[in-house]
Amino acid sequence: MRTKNLLYAQSGGVTPVINATACGLIETARQNSDRLGKVYAGKDGIIGILNEELIDTSKERQADIAALRHTPGGAFGSCRFKLKGIDESRAQYARLIEVFRAHNIGYFFYNGGGDSADTAYKVSQIGDKLGFPVQCIGVPKTIDNDLPITDVCPGFGSVAKYVAVSIMEASLDVESMASSSTKVFVLEVMGRHAGWIAAAGGLAQRRRGDPPHIILFPELLLDEKVLLKKVADTVKAHGFCSMVVSEGVRNRQGRFLSDSGRRDAFGHAQLGGVAPVIASMITDALGYKSHWAVADYLQRSARHVAAKTDVEQAYAMGKAAIQLALQGKSGVMPVVVRTADRPYRWKVGEVDLAKVANREKKMPRRFISKDGFGITAAARRYLEPLIRGEEYPPYDHDGLPKYVHLKNRLVAKKLAPFEF
Amino acid sequence: MRTKNLLYAQSGGVTPVINATACGLIETARQNSDRLGKVYAGKDGIIGILNEELIDTSKERQADIAALRHTPGGAFGSCRFKLKGIDESRAQYARLIEVFRAHNIGYFFYNGGGDSADTAYKVSQIGDKLGFPVQCIGVPKTIDNDLPITDVCPGFGSVAKYVAVSIMEASLDVESMASSSTKVFVLEVMGRHAGWIAAAGGLAQRRRGDPPHIILFPELLLDEKVLLKKVADTVKAHGFCSMVVSEGVRNRQGRFLSDSGRRDAFGHAQLGGVAPVIASMITDALGYKSHWAVADYLQRSARHVAAKTDVEQAYAMGKAAIQLALQGKSGVMPVVVRTADRPYRWKVGEVDLAKVANREKKMPRRFISKDGFGITAAARRYLEPLIRGEEYPPYDHDGLPKYVHLKNRLVAKKLAPFEF
Repeated sequence: MRTKNLLYAQSGGVTPVINATACGLIETARQNSDRLGKVYAGKDGIIGILNEELIDTSKERQADIAALRHTPGGAFGSCRFKLKGIDESRAQYARLIEVFRAHNIGYFFYNGGGDSADTAYKVSQIGDKLGFPVQCIGVPKTIDNDLPITDVCPGFGSVAKYVAVSIMEASLDVESMASSSTKVFVLEVMGRHAGWIAAAGGLAQRRRGDPPHIILFPELLLDEKVLLKKVADTVKAHGFCSMVVSEGVRNRQGRFLSDSGRRDAFGHAQLGGVAPVIASMITDALGYKSHWAVADYLQRSARHVAAKTDVEQAYAMGKAAIQLALQGKSGVMPVVVRTADRPYRWKVGEVDLAKVANREKKMPRRFISKDGFGITAAARRYLEPLIRGEEYPPYDHDGLPKYVHLKNRLVAKKLAPFEF
Repeated sequence: MRTKNLLYAQSGGVTPVINATACGLIETARQNSDRLGKVYAGKDGIIGILNEELIDTSKERQADIAALRHTPGGAFGSCRFKLKGIDESRAQYARLIEVFRAHNIGYFFYNGGGDSADTAYKVSQIGDKLGFPVQCIGVPKTIDNDLPITDVCPGFGSVAKYVAVSIMEASLDVESMASSSTKVFVLEVMGRHAGWIAAAGGLAQRRRGDPPHIILFPELLLDEKVLLKKVADTVKAHGFCSMVVSEGVRNRQGRFLSDSGRRDAFGHAQLGGVAPVIASMITDALGYKSHWAVADYLQRSARHVAAKTDVEQAYAMGKAAIQLALQGKSGVMPVVVRTADRPYRWKVGEVDLAKVANREKKMPRRFISKDGFGITAAARRYLEPLIRGEEYPPYDHDGLPKYVHLKNRLVAKKLAPFEF
């Protein structure tokens, strides 16, 4: 029997370790070349599949595939494109099956968050109906850590480590200067709807009183007066105040602080930026000199300070996806199962995509301290193992990481263009 | 003869490696305890000396002093406080001498930038006049890299590495998503009057066409139209546009693009927030989705990605400062002397403080490409060795760096309080 080819696609915002998942998947597939065909990858994610732009990863050298383990970004490209329900987007699902058939695809791996799990689930259902059964495996990824069931989403641990290390370092800086200069520092991090990433900043607080002194979560509405009192109290007690704020912080009316309607010198509406709003608010009200940073994509691509645990889990998810495929599974996703906290132990599990699709894991309220400005011991117990260990990328002689750029050769097209 | 004590102070903005200099200085002084007394450190810099708040570093364990080599921030505190001319600030200079005399200080080490070199120089002159000769040694430090004569200022190399690594990583992220999402990314970096740090971002561009595609320097006035055309051309050619912009970018009228109106202790305008201005300008004019990051203190404290070359030079400056003191020198500063580019070689030199004080090293125009948006081969030849090598801090089991907090025990005061 002719072996079927595999099709892999990266979906949504990339992470420092999504390529480690690709690495695990491709390496494991190559080890099973007696049973599996080539691994193709959608160029720029599912859009590339609809456009029949398939990258032939068999053209890549083994060393380059291995280098994916330590390369951030999305090596084959990704996109934010959600397939709608089957009834609304039937033509798109049919097109996917058409592409699968044309390129002898027997396995579809969709590496993303909740939306992607949903898409993979739907494809797994419709494949049968359209007469081309394909095994669909979801592969978890998202820095937002909002997938249910899995203990953690690969990508989150490294972002968490970046945030914790960065706020620890910046706080040492502020502390040095606070007696005569900057007293308040605000670091803005991602996580519009869930405070997982902001919470990770709290790991830098090894002892009571350590920075960061204040964390602002998207889960709680911000009372400006309460915040200002907390800042003033903190500066009085410690001489400075170090903060981690989520981009999704909202005021008491439930409005995002970043939608503050501020305009710059040119009259342009200012994009994003909760940190400058908070910093200005504090400086205006309390007179403290403040500084702020917005990490933005830096946090999401900082492979140079990735967590070893995260890299290993990301790789394991890719490997497990192939193993599930070899077991004949479809409509499933490998997950991280925590078996012990101390010492931290985990294993690979699996879950039905139907249980993951479109379900968001919220941060539990018990992870946020009573006053709303910090994390609890329970949060720490959950988060701390996830940032453990260092796995540095190799560096070149020029002092920069050896990140790989793949050749990304496309497979010859066989179909007419698709009209979106 | 009773050995004289040493007094060390950190000045101005801290760096990822200023403590490595302190480490080199204290360790070398301890190795020469037959000829040198205790090393005291000004609490929060020279303000602490004026207040007779002297930290007794002899109370610190050897392992903790060794850990300074890998700890960012300023371990004894720093300040932005510039002593004025001798005629205006005679009382302050007299107070310094009074403190020196009370604590048997024979050596004064001032670890900072141009302002600090100036102060150290003046103290070296006035000591004689006020009847208490003290050997004054400047010790170079500043991420701005604007001290003359020395090949590089310790601190700069690590910030340069942070910026180059960060823009390389974030660019991989943007490149992955650009076909359907963010096309323009803007990273704002420090360097108010000199583009050294912004230029370092150019090191990430290993080959022609690699990101960052555009660097904005404070040395050149920005023509908005020319920039917009460059961005559009870049997106057309590469699918995305990755930028590094200096906080000190000014428009054609010479006005800072983001002048918050706040001023620091030296009366300098406090900047921050150029990136959102540039990003908004591009999105409004060209319609590209953009993202921006402001690294702020993160870049200045990112010891986790320090350059080995920089750490070694920082340590060497501290060590050399003691050696100069032992040679009976005063009014001098150790410097880094580059003896070869390829392979990069350097040695420790010395220079008269009078030649360093208040002189700023500008980035040469020949380091900026003709079109004003990139760096030249000459710039690369200068910059590249400075970010070489990795020297990671040790990490704890909890996944965070083992940064040290010293005990910082104060010496008993002997004098009446000083009135500023």
